[in-house]
Amino acid sequence: MPQDHIRPSKPEVSEFALGARTYFERLQGEICAALEHADHVAKFSVDRWDREGGGGGVSRVIQDGALFEKGGVNISEVTGDLPERLAESMNVATTQFYATGISLVLHPRSPMVPTVHMNYRYFEQQDGNGWFGGGSDLTPYYPVLEDIVHFHRVLKRACDAHDSAYYPKFKRWCDEYFFVRHRQERRGVGGIFFDYLKGDRARNFAFVQSAGNVFLESYLPIVERRRDLPWGERERRWQLLRRGRYVEFNLVYDRGTLFGLETGARAESVLMSLPPEARWEYAMRPEPGSREAELVALLMQPRDWVMEYEGK
Amino acid sequence: MPQDHIRPSKPEVSEFALGARTYFERLQGEICAALEHADHVAKFSVDRWDREGGGGGVSRVIQDGALFEKGGVNISEVTGDLPERLAESMNVATTQFYATGISLVLHPRSPMVPTVHMNYRYFEQQDGNGWFGGGSDLTPYYPVLEDIVHFHRVLKRACDAHDSAYYPKFKRWCDEYFFVRHRQERRGVGGIFFDYLKGDRARNFAFVQSAGNVFLESYLPIVERRRDLPWGERERRWQLLRRGRYVEFNLVYDRGTLFGLETGARAESVLMSLPPEARWEYAMRPEPGSREAELVALLMQPRDWVMEYEGK
Repeated sequence: MPQDHIRPSKPEVSEFALGARTYFERLQGEICAALEHADHVAKFSVDRWDREGGGGGVSRVIQDGALFEKGGVNISEVTGDLPERLAESMNVATTQFYATGISLVLHPRSPMVPTVHMNYRYFEQQDGNGWFGGGSDLTPYYPVLEDIVHFHRVLKRACDAHDSAYYPKFKRWCDEYFFVRHRQERRGVGGIFFDYLKGDRARNFAFVQSAGNVFLESYLPIVERRRDLPWGERERRWQLLRRGRYVEFNLVYDRGTLFGLETGARAESVLMSLPPEARWEYAMRPEPGSREAELVALLMQPRDWVMEYEGK
Repeated sequence: MPQDHIRPSKPEVSEFALGARTYFERLQGEICAALEHADHVAKFSVDRWDREGGGGGVSRVIQDGALFEKGGVNISEVTGDLPERLAESMNVATTQFYATGISLVLHPRSPMVPTVHMNYRYFEQQDGNGWFGGGSDLTPYYPVLEDIVHFHRVLKRACDAHDSAYYPKFKRWCDEYFFVRHRQERRGVGGIFFDYLKGDRARNFAFVQSAGNVFLESYLPIVERRRDLPWGERERRWQLLRRGRYVEFNLVYDRGTLFGLETGARAESVLMSLPPEARWEYAMRPEPGSREAELVALLMQPRDWVMEYEGK
C-alpha cells in the first residue's frame, strides 16, 4: 500500500476498533437516508478525505434544503501520536492511538425547529486500553416542553436498557459539559453526555449502539411537529443570535472541536458544526416575559425534564 | 469606598499604571469622536461596568451606522490574582496583578472597507515588574495594495521614531500571531504586534503612545477612499464568509479574548470584537482568478508591503 510511506506511525488497530468503525459507517448511512427523506429537497454530498499522519474520514453535508439550512454527518478515524498537550488534558500517556467516531450537527432553517447534535466515539491506545464517549443534545430557539421531554425520554430509555444509573449521570454530565461559562448559561436543553466509558468493552459498545440507534426517533418527531409553524423576521433574528452562542461554545469550549483542530483533522469537517449564518448584537437581552426570555431562563437553570413530566 | 468590600485582593497600583490608564481613556475619547464624525449617522453608546474581584471598564459601541455595521472601543482595568493557567501560559508568577488596556474592532457595513483591530495594554505585577503589549492589524475583504501599504507605512513611521528594529520585528510577529493554523492562512494583511515589551518603561510608554496616536491616520484615509464603492450580494456574501474566519481566530486563538473570558471580564465587552453577522458554508473556495481568490493568496503568503512599494 503506497500510503504506508506517509503513515509511519500507524498503530495496530484492534478488531474491536474496526467493529466500532463499521457501526459508525452504517449509522451514518442510515441517518443520512432518513434526513434526506425528511428534507424533501436537498441531498447529502459525500467527501472522503485522508489525514496526513494517518486516518481520514467521510464528511456528508446537506445545504440549502427545505428543512435543513446546513447539516453534517461525519465519520472519521485518526491514528498517530497523541499531541502532548492533548494527552495531558485527557490524562493519558502520549502513546500512539486510534480514534474513530460519528459526529452530527443539524441546523434547520426554521427557528421553530431545534438544532441537534450527536457524537459517539471510540478511542484506543497502543496498550489496548480503550473507551467510548459521546452523547446527544438539543438546542431549541423556541422551546416546547413536550419536545424536550420527548428527546430526553427516548435517550433515557436507551440508557435504562443498559444501566439505570446511566441516564441520571449522563444527563447531569451533559448539563455540565455544555455550560458556556462566560455567559453563565447552557448551550441548549441538554440530553446525555459521557466520556472515558471503560470496563467491559462489549457491554459499553452495545450501549453506544443503543444510543446511536435512537437518534432518529429522538429528533424526527420534533421536526415533524414544528416544521410547518409560521415564523418571521423576529424569530429569524433570535435564531441567528442564539446560533452565535452555539459558535461561542463550539470554538471556545468543545473538546471534540479542539481535539479535531489540534490533531490536524480536516478543518472543514471539524467545523461543519458551525451554523450557516450567525449574529452578534452588543448587549442584546430579550424582552422580559417574551418567549425568547423563556428560553434564556431554561438555559440558566437546567431542569429534570422526564421526572417533572412524569410527576404530572 | 464601599466597593472595597468586594475587592479584597486589590493590589497597589503604580503611578505609572495610572498614567497608562489615563492615556488609554483619552485615546478612547479621541477615537470615538473621530469615528462618529466619519459615520455621519450612528453614535457610540457608553457602558460602564465593574468586575467582580477588582477593576472594570468602559465599553463604547456603535451599531447600525451608515459606515459601521458594528464597532467597539473598550478600555478596561483588571486587578486581582492571576489564574494559574494564565500565569503558566504567560510564564509569570501567579501574584496579584494589574492590567489596563484599550481594545478596538470596527466592522464596516461595506465589504469594500476593511475591518480593523487595535489593542494596546499595560500589565503590572505586584513586584513592580511591568510591560506593554498590543498592536494593530487590517483585515480587508477586497484588498487594495495602496491601502495595505498606507496602513503599514503609518505604523512603520510610528515605530521608526522610537527604534528602527521595531517595525520589522513587530510586523513579522503580527504575521505569526494572526495565523489561523487550522486554515493555514492569516486573519488579514497584518500590521504590528508585540508583547512583553519590558525595560525602560517610560520609553516603552512613549512608543505605545505614538502607535496609538496614529490609529486614525492609519485607517480613516482607507475608509474615505473605499466607502462609496458599489457592492452587491456577491461581495456581501464574501464579507460574511471572511467574518466567519475572523470569529474562528478570535475564539480559538486570540490571547486577549481568552484572557478576558478566563479572568471573568464582562463577556459582552470581550466579545464586542465579533462581527454583527457571519457565515459558514461547507468547503467554500473562491473561483480561481477572482478578486476573492486574490485575497486568499495574500493571506497564505505574507508580503513585505512597505519594501515592495518603495522598491517600485
